[in-house]
Amino acid sequence: MSHEALFTDLYELTMLRAYLAGNMRAPAVFEFFVRKLPERRSFLIAAGLAQALEYLENLRFDEEGLEYLARTVPLDPEHVEYLRTLRFTGDVDAVPEGTIVFPNEPLFRVVAPIAEAQLVETRLINILHFQTLLASKAVRSVLAAPGKLLVDFGSRRAHGLEAGVLCARAAFLAGFAGTSNLLAGQRFGIPVYGTMAHSFVQAHDDEVAAFRLFTRANPNTVLLIDTYDTERAAQDVVRLAREGIAIRGVRIDSGDLGAHAHAVRRILDAGGLERCTIFASGGIDEDALARLAASGAPIDGFGVGTRLDTSADAPYLDCAYKLQEYAGRARRKRSEGKATWPGRKQVFRKHAANGRMVEDVVTLVGDTQPGEPLLVPVMRGGRRLAEAEPLTVLRARVEAQIRSLPDELRALEAPPTPYPVRVSERLQALTAELDRTQR
Amino acid sequence: MSHEALFTDLYELTMLRAYLAGNMRAPAVFEFFVRKLPERRSFLIAAGLAQALEYLENLRFDEEGLEYLARTVPLDPEHVEYLRTLRFTGDVDAVPEGTIVFPNEPLFRVVAPIAEAQLVETRLINILHFQTLLASKAVRSVLAAPGKLLVDFGSRRAHGLEAGVLCARAAFLAGFAGTSNLLAGQRFGIPVYGTMAHSFVQAHDDEVAAFRLFTRANPNTVLLIDTYDTERAAQDVVRLAREGIAIRGVRIDSGDLGAHAHAVRRILDAGGLERCTIFASGGIDEDALARLAASGAPIDGFGVGTRLDTSADAPYLDCAYKLQEYAGRARRKRSEGKATWPGRKQVFRKHAANGRMVEDVVTLVGDTQPGEPLLVPVMRGGRRLAEAEPLTVLRARVEAQIRSLPDELRALEAPPTPYPVRVSERLQALTAELDRTQR
Repeated sequence: MSHEALFTDLYELTMLRAYLAGNMRAPAVFEFFVRKLPERRSFLIAAGLAQALEYLENLRFDEEGLEYLARTVPLDPEHVEYLRTLRFTGDVDAVPEGTIVFPNEPLFRVVAPIAEAQLVETRLINILHFQTLLASKAVRSVLAAPGKLLVDFGSRRAHGLEAGVLCARAAFLAGFAGTSNLLAGQRFGIPVYGTMAHSFVQAHDDEVAAFRLFTRANPNTVLLIDTYDTERAAQDVVRLAREGIAIRGVRIDSGDLGAHAHAVRRILDAGGLERCTIFASGGIDEDALARLAASGAPIDGFGVGTRLDTSADAPYLDCAYKLQEYAGRARRKRSEGKATWPGRKQVFRKHAANGRMVEDVVTLVGDTQPGEPLLVPVMRGGRRLAEAEPLTVLRARVEAQIRSLPDELRALEAPPTPYPVRVSERLQALTAELDRTQR
Repeated sequence: MSHEALFTDLYELTMLRAYLAGNMRAPAVFEFFVRKLPERRSFLIAAGLAQALEYLENLRFDEEGLEYLARTVPLDPEHVEYLRTLRFTGDVDAVPEGTIVFPNEPLFRVVAPIAEAQLVETRLINILHFQTLLASKAVRSVLAAPGKLLVDFGSRRAHGLEAGVLCARAAFLAGFAGTSNLLAGQRFGIPVYGTMAHSFVQAHDDEVAAFRLFTRANPNTVLLIDTYDTERAAQDVVRLAREGIAIRGVRIDSGDLGAHAHAVRRILDAGGLERCTIFASGGIDEDALARLAASGAPIDGFGVGTRLDTSADAPYLDCAYKLQEYAGRARRKRSEGKATWPGRKQVFRKHAANGRMVEDVVTLVGDTQPGEPLLVPVMRGGRRLAEAEPLTVLRARVEAQIRSLPDELRALEAPPTPYPVRVSERLQALTAELDRTQR
C-alpha cells in the first residue's frame, strides 16, 4: 500500500531530520518485545511476521506523501530527497510465526541505518502487536474447546477493516477452522463459513417459508432457529427434513445456549436427525466455551465474534520496539518501570526428554546456550530470505508448540509460577556495566 | 478501495442467493443502533458517517473478488453478473456525526432493495461501530482534562492501520488537539504533534549531546527528559536555555508523572523557563487525567495512547444493524435478550429553556413529537446529498452538544438514573401488534 509509509508518528520524522543533520548513519539495533503478559495469560503466540516483512520490503513514499511531509513536518528539500529514494536496506532476525513466546524475549530484531530503523517503528509495532495479541487470544478458545469447530465471526466489531482481516488470519493460525470474512478468505486462503441472519427470517411473513426458500437456494445448509422460538423452529426443521429437504445443521444465537442445545438435540434426534449439527454463537469467548464444555452441551461448533476480534479482556499488550545497540555499542533505557535489557539478543529454549518446554534463556547473540535458538534470519539487505510460510504450516507449528507446553500453562488461568525465562550471566553483566558507565 | 466490497460475511452472500432465488426485490429498512451502554458510559458520540457513506457510494466488486466469490460461496453466473453491476441505490437517513446519542436510538437507516441493504451490513457496522466507540471514549478525556492539550499517541497499538487512522479522526472530532499519526494528518487535515523518542537519546553517548543535536535540527522543540534521570535532565534543559537554545517544552513518559511534573516545574521556573511547557505521556487515560487534574499537577498537555486507541476499558459496543421493515411491513426480532423496536424510526430531542437536553423520544417516522428530529436525509438513490462535513464543524458540534448535556452525564462515572429515552405510544402499540400477529 503506497500510503502505508505515512502510517508513522511525526516524531519518527523529527528524529530523522536530526539523524541526518548529525550525520548519524551507523547501524542501529532495535528489538520488538512484550514487557509483560496481560492478566490470565501464560504465554503468547508470535504472529504478524509475514505482514511486517512485506511492509519493510515495499516501504516507499509516494509524491503526495512527500509533499505532505515537506509542508507539515516540515522537511527541507534534502530530507524530501532522502525519503524519495528511501528503501529499507536492513537485516531482520525474528521468531517464526506460531512460536510460543514470553515477556522480555525479542520477537523481531532490526539492524539498519538508524534513520531507517527508527522510521518503521510505528507501523512495525502496529503490525506485530495486533496479530500477536489476537493469536494469543484465539488459542485460548482452541484450548477451551478441543475438537469443536471454531469460526471467527467478529469482523463487524473488529476495529476497522485491517483488524477484521488480520484477526481472521491470526485466529486461523491459532487453530480456528475458518472465518466468516470473505476478504480474509480471498487474501489468505482461509476457509469461509456462514449460515443466515435473523433479517432473512424476519423478511418473510412466516419462518417456515424463510427456511424453505433458504434451503432451496442453499442446499444442505445451516438454518438459524432462534428468531422467534428456538424449540418450535427445531420442530419445523424436523418436518422439513421429512419432506426430503437436506439440512446440515442449525444455529442458535441467543438465550441460554447450553439449555437450548440440549432441547434442540432431543428434538432433532427424536426426529431422526442425529447427524444434523448444532452450531452456537452470541457472546462466545474462551470462558463461555469452557463453561459449555463442562456442562456437556451438545454443540458441535461455535462462532466466536466480538470478544475475540477485540481481544476484549486484554485489548492490548504492553510491548515496545527499543534501541539496544548503536554504532556497535550496547544501549539501555533506564526509565522507571520501563528499563530494557541491552544488546543484540537471542533466546534459547530447552526441552525435556518428553518434548516439553522446560526453560528459556535470554542472552546475547554469540553466547550459545543449550537448547534451540528462537530467532532466525528472515531478511538481509532489505530482501526477504524466503517466501512467507503458508498458513497451514503456521497452524501446524502452533499445534506442535501447544503439545510441548507444560500442562499448567494450558489452563485459562495463569499458574502461580510463570514459565521460567532466565537472563544469562553475560547479559546481566553487560547490563550492570552499562549502568555503571552510561549517563 | 476496490477490496472493500469483499469485506463482508459469507452469509450476506448466501442470503443474497436466496433473495434472488425468491425474487425478493422489495425495499428493506435496516437501522443501526447501540443496544446498551458499556459500564461507566452515560452517552455516546455518533461518528463514522462520512466513511459509511463513502463506502456505500463507491461500492463495487472487482473481477478478482467476483472470481473468488463464484468459486467459494459458490455463486452461479447469474449471481456473479448481478454483483458485477451492483451499485448501492438506496436511501440513508442518519444522525449527524458529533451528535450525542443513546441506546435504542437509530443512528443510521438504510432503505434499499433487500439484497443490497443486507450485503453492506458487515462493513457498515464495522465503520459505524468503531468510530462511535472511539469518539465516545475520547470525549471522556476531553471532559476529564478541560483546557489541556490532548494528542492521540496510540497508533502503534491501535488494531491495525485503519484503526490508527480512524481513531485519530474520532479523537479530533471529540475535541483532541491532534494526533501523532501522519497518515491521519494527511488524510483528514488533522494537526500533527510529536516530540522525540528514548532511542534518540540512547543513540548518543551523552544525553546533553542528544539534546543539542535535536534542538539544532528542530528549533524550539520539545525534549524528552526521562530516559535516565528526569530531574537531572530538566537541569540540563535549563543550562542549554542559558546558552540561547530555544526549548518549547519537555516531555515526561514514565514514573509518577505528577511528582515529576512538580519537581520539573520547580527546576524550570527557578531557571527562568516559566514559559517552557510540560507534556506527559505513558499509560494516560481519562482516569489518569482526572487524578492528575485533581492533584494540581502542572502538566500542560498529554499524549493519550494505547488505552484510547483500543478503548481499553470498553473495547466494543453492543450494537446491531437490524431489519425493521420489509415490503412495507414492520418487522421485529424477538430473540431472547435481543428484541428490537420495529418500523422506520425517528428520534426527537427536547431541550429546556437553558438549552440543556431533557428527554429523547423514539417514535415512528411520521409521528412528529416536540423537539428536534435527530435523523436527517444524507443519501438518496445511492448518492450523497452533500459533501462530508468538515471535521472542524463536527468538533464544534461536539462542543455544543457537550454544553447541552445535563451536568450529571459529564462525570466519568454513569449517574444512577440514565438520561431519559422514551419509546412513544405509537411505537409501543406497533410492537404489541406485531407480537400478536407475527409468527
